[in-house]
Amino acid sequence: MSSGLGPPTAAVRPREDRATADRVALSAATARGARSRTEEVRAWLAERRRAHVFEVTRIPFAELRQWRFEEGTGNLVHRSGRFFTVEGMHVVESDGPYGDGPYQEWQQPVVRQPEVGILGILAKEFDGVLHFLMQAKMEPGNPNLLQLSPTVQATRSNYTRAHRGTDVKLIDHFFRPDPDRVLVDVLQSEQGSWFYRKSNRNMIVETVDDVPELDDFRWLTLGQIAELLHEDDLVNMNARTVLSCVQYPDTSPGALLSDAQLLSWFTGERSRHDIRVERVPLASVRGWKQGVEAIEHEDGRYFKVVAVSVRAGNREVVDWDQPLLEPVGLGVSAFLVREIEGVPHVLVHARAEGGFLDTVELAPTVQCTPGNHAHLTPEHRPPFLDTVLDARPERIRYEAVHSEEGGRFLNARSRYLLVDADDVPLAPPPGYTWATPGQLRALTRHGHYLNVEARTLLACMNATAARPRGGQ
Amino acid sequence: MSSGLGPPTAAVRPREDRATADRVALSAATARGARSRTEEVRAWLAERRRAHVFEVTRIPFAELRQWRFEEGTGNLVHRSGRFFTVEGMHVVESDGPYGDGPYQEWQQPVVRQPEVGILGILAKEFDGVLHFLMQAKMEPGNPNLLQLSPTVQATRSNYTRAHRGTDVKLIDHFFRPDPDRVLVDVLQSEQGSWFYRKSNRNMIVETVDDVPELDDFRWLTLGQIAELLHEDDLVNMNARTVLSCVQYPDTSPGALLSDAQLLSWFTGERSRHDIRVERVPLASVRGWKQGVEAIEHEDGRYFKVVAVSVRAGNREVVDWDQPLLEPVGLGVSAFLVREIEGVPHVLVHARAEGGFLDTVELAPTVQCTPGNHAHLTPEHRPPFLDTVLDARPERIRYEAVHSEEGGRFLNARSRYLLVDADDVPLAPPPGYTWATPGQLRALTRHGHYLNVEARTLLACMNATAARPRGGQ
Repeated sequence: MSSGLGPPTAAVRPREDRATADRVALSAATARGARSRTEEVRAWLAERRRAHVFEVTRIPFAELRQWRFEEGTGNLVHRSGRFFTVEGMHVVESDGPYGDGPYQEWQQPVVRQPEVGILGILAKEFDGVLHFLMQAKMEPGNPNLLQLSPTVQATRSNYTRAHRGTDVKLIDHFFRPDPDRVLVDVLQSEQGSWFYRKSNRNMIVETVDDVPELDDFRWLTLGQIAELLHEDDLVNMNARTVLSCVQYPDTSPGALLSDAQLLSWFTGERSRHDIRVERVPLASVRGWKQGVEAIEHEDGRYFKVVAVSVRAGNREVVDWDQPLLEPVGLGVSAFLVREIEGVPHVLVHARAEGGFLDTVELAPTVQCTPGNHAHLTPEHRPPFLDTVLDARPERIRYEAVHSEEGGRFLNARSRYLLVDADDVPLAPPPGYTWATPGQLRALTRHGHYLNVEARTLLACMNATAARPRGGQ
Repeated sequence: MSSGLGPPTAAVRPREDRATADRVALSAATARGARSRTEEVRAWLAERRRAHVFEVTRIPFAELRQWRFEEGTGNLVHRSGRFFTVEGMHVVESDGPYGDGPYQEWQQPVVRQPEVGILGILAKEFDGVLHFLMQAKMEPGNPNLLQLSPTVQATRSNYTRAHRGTDVKLIDHFFRPDPDRVLVDVLQSEQGSWFYRKSNRNMIVETVDDVPELDDFRWLTLGQIAELLHEDDLVNMNARTVLSCVQYPDTSPGALLSDAQLLSWFTGERSRHDIRVERVPLASVRGWKQGVEAIEHEDGRYFKVVAVSVRAGNREVVDWDQPLLEPVGLGVSAFLVREIEGVPHVLVHARAEGGFLDTVELAPTVQCTPGNHAHLTPEHRPPFLDTVLDARPERIRYEAVHSEEGGRFLNARSRYLLVDADDVPLAPPPGYTWATPGQLRALTRHGHYLNVEARTLLACMNATAARPRGGQ
């Protein structure tokens, strides 16, 4: 068919690749995978949990062998200088010029890890349908230790080390991927309340190579993963954020705001927040106290910094110790959902977090740990929190408890909800606006628009669309 | 026609607004404005230059009355604590893991102004064609003092002050704009080699109100502004960056890389650069020396920090003094241009600058001050610099000298060029890739993709498309 005249190395192609969106939709619609049955995933995870030694023990800071409080600053650092540090952060927020954001100032401990890691999922077609290689991975902070993870999770230190672990073959797929095989590739932020300006490279790369079938890995369709996203503590945070960046086709006829209007609203939110953040020594952080086993807030709110000792492996067992951040209670992250002329919209919040690279990112309507606000009168509690907590069961479109990153956070769990709220006004309060899931998906092509909690909810929305509630 | 059943406050609209792109194209194609003739703009600018008192005098630092070197740090600060500061910056760049970026470490003075200003152009239809309200504005650092500027240039301090100047009415258009009237609204970076993480809100807002015709303002079409962009030192940097964000329709059939591939390449470039930047006291900056009238590099390279005294006004004359950064030579910013299957592409460079918010932004193929590299052997000079400097006249698609921001920089001028280079390979060296002007325009809907020099060239490309060379 080809005339053979065009140079083989140069070809102008359409700027948008429609075929990939169709392949994504097909995988999402495929509930029976070619390689594994969904019902067997739980049993496989339990089996892998038994196959590994994995013991996590809380220890006092004094028993940390590989970590120490740095002289002078009191920062918690690894003896090698690698991995991450626990430092202090001083945040001053004075929101103007509209005057609707109060002045706030606080200090807190924060995890600093100024290197970009890779969260990569390998994809491959079986029977003409895209499958994704998910790993059964242990992490010390997970309440159930082992969860479904991306194919690889690698810090820069990991993947540049001469001595490489079991990821050696799989990480190579993400190192210099063939541009024609990249489905997702974007830097996304992590928790801005716990991390100082952390971002990771979220990737999905397709392969046509044979991939060895290892015990800790399973190929699953997006439809299968959607089912699993309805279970508690099963799909880990790193998998959820990568999945949130998948470009499902947008079938809705439009949105309340055009894309240009949504971006303009966001620009206004970024501009009206004035947030100055300084790193400070951990030892000097005001409002927090250091004990034998924990650094905690004076009123017992937010989180603690604790230490654990870990013993892990299957054939070869390794020991290490490390600090973890342990939130004080179960969090709530929820989008209110409203159909506008038949098109579902969610109420997004332009939320400031001290650790964000740039002022605000789009967050769930409600994102908090209710216990931190229990002492406040209703009018001082976070907007819409009571709407979410008091929602009748028939208004709850989606609900599951998910864990945050188990390599840095201990028992950090949140209820993720999608709650019908057709009675919430079309003109929401300042700092909130309505956007469609399709608009949010388009924003995940770029970094620093959606925060990690909003991305988890977006992954859940994709899953809810793929498998409507009660439709198992 | 309407059934009258829909709620009047809610309407789902298409996510993309095609009508605006058509109106932009019409304005670009309109060489004769409804309000002013293009040929008269130069005379009007000269007349405004005469109408104002504007005297700029270099002074030694000791004669600064409103600024002082802060005790302890030596930072240059305003006595009120407002406006901006001149501080130090320590940059460490260690690019891996691909190993093609060398380790670099340096210190330098830098301007810090951690507030978001507004650069706003007001738009209005006359005879069915969009016109843009441009101001004849004096700035102390401009070589010719007065240039064509946005309708308003306001720092946050300016527009939140109780006491407001002549901009009072015009700035209100940009304060809480009607979402249906916003044509451009995005936060964009400024010079990362001279500013520490500076960004401004670039806006174009349409009005249907009557706007008083003031002596310092003229309504011009995009076609008229395109002609003026071919003149030296006429359209100021702030006008150029706002104009670069105008969403002209993309008429080309595609690109060498799809948008997803271009974004993936960019993510890879951001990931492979590891840049740590610390603010340091100006007094401690290594490699720079402080004299009576200038802080300068020990080898006389890059720029100087100097001080000026300004006397300005027309009816009411005000005096002030301030520091300015003065580059040591004429800069060069150039895109190499190559047609691929008939579609023009430019060679963009993922360039690290110490003052960027996030590692790299897309920059011109060549962006440097040649004098800073004159002492180096050819193989150590910036890639493609000689291609640009040696280009025969017939290969030069566009050339003009433009000034950088005259409120902070003194005589900061660069030759901006578009140079035909059909012999440059389709597979360029690491850190470079081919992209179409349409792709770059789409990226200016978001911040921190294109640096300010690339945005000036994008505005020039839009102008070249609107008025082909020699077509006056």
